[in-house]
Amino acid sequence: MKRLYGLLTLRTFDYYSYFCLLSFIFDLMISKPSIPKGTRDFSTDEMLKREFIFDTIKKVFKLYGYQPIETPAMENLSTLLGKYGEEGDRLIFRILNSGDFLAGVRDEDLQKREGGKLSQQICEKGLRYDLTVPFARYVVQYRDKLIFPFKRYQIQPVWRADRPQKGRYREFFQCDVDVIGSDSLLNEYELIKIIDEVFTLLDISIVIKLNNRKILSGIAGYIGEGSRITDITVAIDKLDKIGIDGVNEVLREKGVAAGAVQKLQPFLKLKGETNAKLMKMEELLSKSETGMKGIAELRTLFSFIRADKISGKVELDLTLARGLNYYTGAIIEVRSADVAIGSICGGGRYDDLTGVFGMKGVSGVGVSFGADRICDVMNQLNLFRSLSSSSTQVLILNFGEAEIKYALNILKLLRNLKIKAELYPDQVKLKKQMSYADAREIPYIIIAGEEEIRANELTIKIMSSGEQKKIQLKDIKSYFLFLKKAND
Amino acid sequence: MKRLYGLLTLRTFDYYSYFCLLSFIFDLMISKPSIPKGTRDFSTDEMLKREFIFDTIKKVFKLYGYQPIETPAMENLSTLLGKYGEEGDRLIFRILNSGDFLAGVRDEDLQKREGGKLSQQICEKGLRYDLTVPFARYVVQYRDKLIFPFKRYQIQPVWRADRPQKGRYREFFQCDVDVIGSDSLLNEYELIKIIDEVFTLLDISIVIKLNNRKILSGIAGYIGEGSRITDITVAIDKLDKIGIDGVNEVLREKGVAAGAVQKLQPFLKLKGETNAKLMKMEELLSKSETGMKGIAELRTLFSFIRADKISGKVELDLTLARGLNYYTGAIIEVRSADVAIGSICGGGRYDDLTGVFGMKGVSGVGVSFGADRICDVMNQLNLFRSLSSSSTQVLILNFGEAEIKYALNILKLLRNLKIKAELYPDQVKLKKQMSYADAREIPYIIIAGEEEIRANELTIKIMSSGEQKKIQLKDIKSYFLFLKKAND
Repeated sequence: MKRLYGLLTLRTFDYYSYFCLLSFIFDLMISKPSIPKGTRDFSTDEMLKREFIFDTIKKVFKLYGYQPIETPAMENLSTLLGKYGEEGDRLIFRILNSGDFLAGVRDEDLQKREGGKLSQQICEKGLRYDLTVPFARYVVQYRDKLIFPFKRYQIQPVWRADRPQKGRYREFFQCDVDVIGSDSLLNEYELIKIIDEVFTLLDISIVIKLNNRKILSGIAGYIGEGSRITDITVAIDKLDKIGIDGVNEVLREKGVAAGAVQKLQPFLKLKGETNAKLMKMEELLSKSETGMKGIAELRTLFSFIRADKISGKVELDLTLARGLNYYTGAIIEVRSADVAIGSICGGGRYDDLTGVFGMKGVSGVGVSFGADRICDVMNQLNLFRSLSSSSTQVLILNFGEAEIKYALNILKLLRNLKIKAELYPDQVKLKKQMSYADAREIPYIIIAGEEEIRANELTIKIMSSGEQKKIQLKDIKSYFLFLKKAND
Repeated sequence: MKRLYGLLTLRTFDYYSYFCLLSFIFDLMISKPSIPKGTRDFSTDEMLKREFIFDTIKKVFKLYGYQPIETPAMENLSTLLGKYGEEGDRLIFRILNSGDFLAGVRDEDLQKREGGKLSQQICEKGLRYDLTVPFARYVVQYRDKLIFPFKRYQIQPVWRADRPQKGRYREFFQCDVDVIGSDSLLNEYELIKIIDEVFTLLDISIVIKLNNRKILSGIAGYIGEGSRITDITVAIDKLDKIGIDGVNEVLREKGVAAGAVQKLQPFLKLKGETNAKLMKMEELLSKSETGMKGIAELRTLFSFIRADKISGKVELDLTLARGLNYYTGAIIEVRSADVAIGSICGGGRYDDLTGVFGMKGVSGVGVSFGADRICDVMNQLNLFRSLSSSSTQVLILNFGEAEIKYALNILKLLRNLKIKAELYPDQVKLKKQMSYADAREIPYIIIAGEEEIRANELTIKIMSSGEQKKIQLKDIKSYFLFLKKAND
């Protein structure tokens, strides 16, 4: 306590450090076990919500002919490194070699204390950083067995050593759906249909934004800065947040010539309806072969979409770039129309994903659903319908040894009807059993004591109303039929 | 080639090394990417089988009132270490601290090259080794929020740095179901019911073996070697494999006194029906309080079981010990009646699982289903019914741009019926499209070319028989009604 008091009198008093210190002491006092920062436990409530989202997504993926695969959590570092840029390499969790991990390390390498070099000698494996690179590895590894076009989906956790912060975790699930080995724009259209169907089923209103990387290349070429496409797209990407002046400022800082920035202005100011935008761009980019190809691709895609009831939700957004450098065609991003939480789904076409693994010229397109953000949106909009039929529906009270046989018989009858039921396992006070039902939100309680057993009856208590009703044991099936139906 | 030839002339020629070398060279030649040894990719076929097993297990768990939770893949090493014995500690995969992992390491510690000590300084986290310890950690961490008795299930992968071998992997799924905070033997009975129901649904004939740790303690005490219970149970556990003489030999090697081994013989020779065995044991262990308690517990459990149709599958097996030292009451193990593959499910009661995390005196009981072995058994017995309704049911051939609109309309009609359907995305030769359907085992093909479109018709080809049939577009719903029903 003396040390604590000393801290309080520090000149540069910092409330945050003080708070951290207090919570550390508190943790020590109760010596509660904990989990690594940035990771999460999922309680039953959270699990049921997530299961609902995953099941919905899977159902749609299957309806559209996509097939599940899974890959191991650990990949060889040779598979992962160099695929996500320098920053990405740093964020990969590495796994210490098992056994004598220092065996092959030279003394001088140890003494130099070069972490980067050393980690390559003591770690061969890493946790997957996303599902895309393992998918590319999978396609190359099994190229002789797979049937192309290969339509796969994959729902698994990924790990990143990011600084933990609100809404950003070190372990999170990705739900990826990709088709590889087909150039057809019908695939982009199908993915947009999948997006629409998933979010319709989840009851989330969305805006789907589309762009094409070839148009961005065309623009970069048109303004005479073809080699600076990354700087330019990164700047354009921020238009929403920092406005036209901000984008221009960023471009100048990056060293883009004033004339080029000037030539870019008509693109930043493009407004209006999709067709009008496309026509204006055709005018500007008429001499860029790549740009015109991008425009033609978008025209075809919009022609499929226009024949559909989803057309109202889809818009062309020339500022959409989505950082990742491997996109070569369509770029897709989905936002909630009601909650400002960033992208909840996104992806695009990549023409050479498997190239790094030695398989050239195979084009793919895919999107990834962000389960965490989707869950946040649904929580905020209160969209989770009652998931109570996923949990126990009936609790039978435990009256003691003499009554157990009768209770077990009721339990069996209920479970045969596929009704989720429990018998309270311990012979404790009924009040305690009732409060268990209450806390677990079990809607029906069955009371079958001496009196009921003598008359071959049971008492049903409806927890929401407190109402009680006696029925004959033989009528149990007809009484609970509605619960059985709720489960079908 | 010259070097290879040199190797072939080595005096101590070793075929295995030679084979390894060849396959290494072969790998290099085709430079195929690979995954870490002991891990697996799951293809769609394997995924559908595993999904079927997991879904069946989950359905039963829920019917019995168990609730899902999930814990992170990474746990703090302080949570994991010391819980699985020395050997277990060695098998935990450790995760290198991110950032400058050498920062806090002293030069002298580096120079000493003590792997064990160093790994504790450069790794704070590890991959979970099983689901039981994370569950115990979870219960203690959220003790104030949980409702007891807490009935949870958890289906997640675990990782062990075991030497990979046939049927043993470094990443595999566990399906655990436990109830914690209840002493009642009704829980043991319920778990046996769950086991019976899961394997009945999977169509696997099983034998459920039961024992009680208290009886084993009683026996150890009775023969005067109470402190040697681990050695004794480990030896008894091998009775099946090495016979009575073998067990006696092992006991003598471990230093168990000859008189004690002699006194053990009646237990090793116990035969016959459950009740007869229990009576004989009551005679022998009449002076052991613990032993008599174990016998009484088994009697109660068997009295629940006897009232049930599962009784034929359940047998008392006094040699059942299941290595793990934390069991304190019932011990449960399940084997396939038809395939000799070892235990496919097992568990027991543990009275002090959460004690290591500071929460004393909370009793739990649970079992774990081995998904990999269950899958192996079902493969060997050919028990996977057609899972084809999980995959695409109808493929619409792609005749080109003029016919796309008509095809997209058919696609929409089918998907509205929840029939899994695809349109081949590329305009390639029909032969190629047909072989795609063939390879993917898609049972129905729809042909809608110029001729069909003109007449508002479509041709359906049944792949199994080769039969073709023309129907009106408006009749598509009634024609495919049986597929829709197969999905419900």
